[in-house]
Amino acid sequence: MASRSIRLAVIPGDGIGPEVVAEGLKVLDAVSGDLAFEQTSYDLGAARWHRTGETLPDSVLAELREQEVILLGAVGDPSVPSGTLERGLLLRTRFELDHYVNLRPVKLFPGVSTPLAGVTPDDIDMVVVREGTEGPYTGVGGVLRKGTPHEVATQESVNTAYGVERVIRYAFEVAASRPRRRLTLVHKDNVLTFAGDLYQRTLKRVAEEYPQVTTDYCHVDAATMFFVSQPRRYDVIVTDNLFGDIITDIGAAIAGGIGLAASGNVNPDRTAPSMFEPVHGSAPDIAGQGKADPTATILSVAMLLDHVGEGEGARRVEQAVSEDLAERAALGARSTSQIGDAIAKRVSG
Amino acid sequence: MASRSIRLAVIPGDGIGPEVVAEGLKVLDAVSGDLAFEQTSYDLGAARWHRTGETLPDSVLAELREQEVILLGAVGDPSVPSGTLERGLLLRTRFELDHYVNLRPVKLFPGVSTPLAGVTPDDIDMVVVREGTEGPYTGVGGVLRKGTPHEVATQESVNTAYGVERVIRYAFEVAASRPRRRLTLVHKDNVLTFAGDLYQRTLKRVAEEYPQVTTDYCHVDAATMFFVSQPRRYDVIVTDNLFGDIITDIGAAIAGGIGLAASGNVNPDRTAPSMFEPVHGSAPDIAGQGKADPTATILSVAMLLDHVGEGEGARRVEQAVSEDLAERAALGARSTSQIGDAIAKRVSG
Ligand SMILES: CC(C)[C@H](C(=O)O)[C@@H](O)C(=O)O
Ligand SMILES: CC(C)[C@H](C(=O)O)[C@@H](O)C(=O)O
Repeated sequence: MASRSIRLAVIPGDGIGPEVVAEGLKVLDAVSGDLAFEQTSYDLGAARWHRTGETLPDSVLAELREQEVILLGAVGDPSVPSGTLERGLLLRTRFELDHYVNLRPVKLFPGVSTPLAGVTPDDIDMVVVREGTEGPYTGVGGVLRKGTPHEVATQESVNTAYGVERVIRYAFEVAASRPRRRLTLVHKDNVLTFAGDLYQRTLKRVAEEYPQVTTDYCHVDAATMFFVSQPRRYDVIVTDNLFGDIITDIGAAIAGGIGLAASGNVNPDRTAPSMFEPVHGSAPDIAGQGKADPTATILSVAMLLDHVGEGEGARRVEQAVSEDLAERAALGARSTSQIGDAIAKRVSG
Repeated sequence: MASRSIRLAVIPGDGIGPEVVAEGLKVLDAVSGDLAFEQTSYDLGAARWHRTGETLPDSVLAELREQEVILLGAVGDPSVPSGTLERGLLLRTRFELDHYVNLRPVKLFPGVSTPLAGVTPDDIDMVVVREGTEGPYTGVGGVLRKGTPHEVATQESVNTAYGVERVIRYAFEVAASRPRRRLTLVHKDNVLTFAGDLYQRTLKRVAEEYPQVTTDYCHVDAATMFFVSQPRRYDVIVTDNLFGDIITDIGAAIAGGIGLAASGNVNPDRTAPSMFEPVHGSAPDIAGQGKADPTATILSVAMLLDHVGEGEGARRVEQAVSEDLAERAALGARSTSQIGDAIAKRVSG
């Protein structure tokens, strides 16, 4: 009998979203033990938008706020104008629920093949702490004289001491908890001087409170190069919203592909529920065929477990994923649910 | 006897800049034939900044305008505050001389090792056409309540129909001249909606004039992933100033490293001289030791030759570099000038 119950919102979304979420929930169920998840499913995504024109109605947002944690599959469909669901649903959730930490581990599991030659799991084990609520993602900007030869389109990156300090503090905590205790700021301070300077000054100031953490700085362009040529350089990275978006996709590429990349949109102050989701999108081209890899979602479930204080369960899920990945090459093609079954079995076994 | 003379400004710069430029000029000399380069050298960079506080004085800029073409080594030194020379010299030159095309080939030469497993020269052969005079590089932005908990720092990306159309037109011309005739727009239009939409609409409109060119679109985050996992996807890419900065560094990483990456800051309307430079920086840690690879500068010289209408000479330089690279693995370590000598000899021989 479950001794603790947690309110979980599930947003399966579009394309492969529902398939991978089903496997994530299967594993969550297998690991739960005396923990019960009270699930509520929300039909947000392309279908709802087509039906009602809504992306994230205020009433649903209000309900989400009452949940303790959210699991999201993926949203987006070619039939919906680019950006509609991304901004109206995904980004709106991140901003409204103050997910100021977008946490993205980049880790090469043993047995997983990487496109990089001569690289081993020891070489790729980092955590990217991406800012989630400001920077170039604010939507601030506009267009003047649209459609004319005199059109001007602007986008503004807005960065605040408040926003930058809290994400940097979080990154120091993550760095202090890891064996290498290294934190790298990734930015472009030689060009984006105002924002870069705010990040730099804040890093220096907070660093005084963490003498055990070594800090350094790397321009984003150089960092993307080092991800490919010397990934071992990095332990924990803190970076802005846009740079974090970009480097975590390269991170996914070097660590076995987007099918394995997990993420958490975290509100560390717990003033609203955090949301866990695979980094990949809805992949409509393979939806409904049982071809999607649910591993990223299952690893996101492990992050969710960590967030709700179930570290032991999280470790069991990670261990099960790690074992499954180590055997995968020998197993040949498996369907989405076969992978989910195999991992769930290891978790409970 | 030289039948044509071209005014060439040389900016050796800092760190390894002078060493690699010397080799670039050696090769230029070897290829020139009946072409003479009337060289003027400009001592811009860290030393001048320390001596006089100047990065690019107006009088020097005025002189540069009278030149036909510029060769730059690299600028930057840890003793100079980050951004000072980058913005005051490099970016100022790009903006003042209206280098609206930043042309960056990404090509894996035979015999060159890439960090990517199982990739051959056929897989990596693209040209990135990076916008050079607007986007997030304008310097527009500011800081309010600096140093307080209420600080706000902004950076604005400014994009104009004028600026976007001209770089897209140039990219179509490049794409139309290549066998695969494929042009990919790289942006982040689902988040940077105003700027992304301007790029998208302009691409569609100009595409009507180039029915022979196939176009597509890729988000910048996905593009960085595909650079690593499927570089073959790309033929010609057009992108904004910041995204171009980032993806060309990954491009350098996959195509054999920053020691081989050439670039041109091009003013296609020839209202001011264009500037050619290696993508790498001044690498002060290896300066003066003969360790720098001059190949990127030599390939930039080939681009310079193309720009001044000496396509035949450009092809000879590229061919010599290609032959040298193919043999490099067997040759062991060579100094900066040994590499320059070897390539110059092939060019003249
Ligand atoms: C879908 C898009 C808005 C989103 C982002 O840019 O953050 C995605 O790329 C991600 O990384 O989660
Ligand atoms: C030095 C810096 C300003 C520059 C840029 O960002 O454009 C460099 O990275 C480049 O790519 O040429």
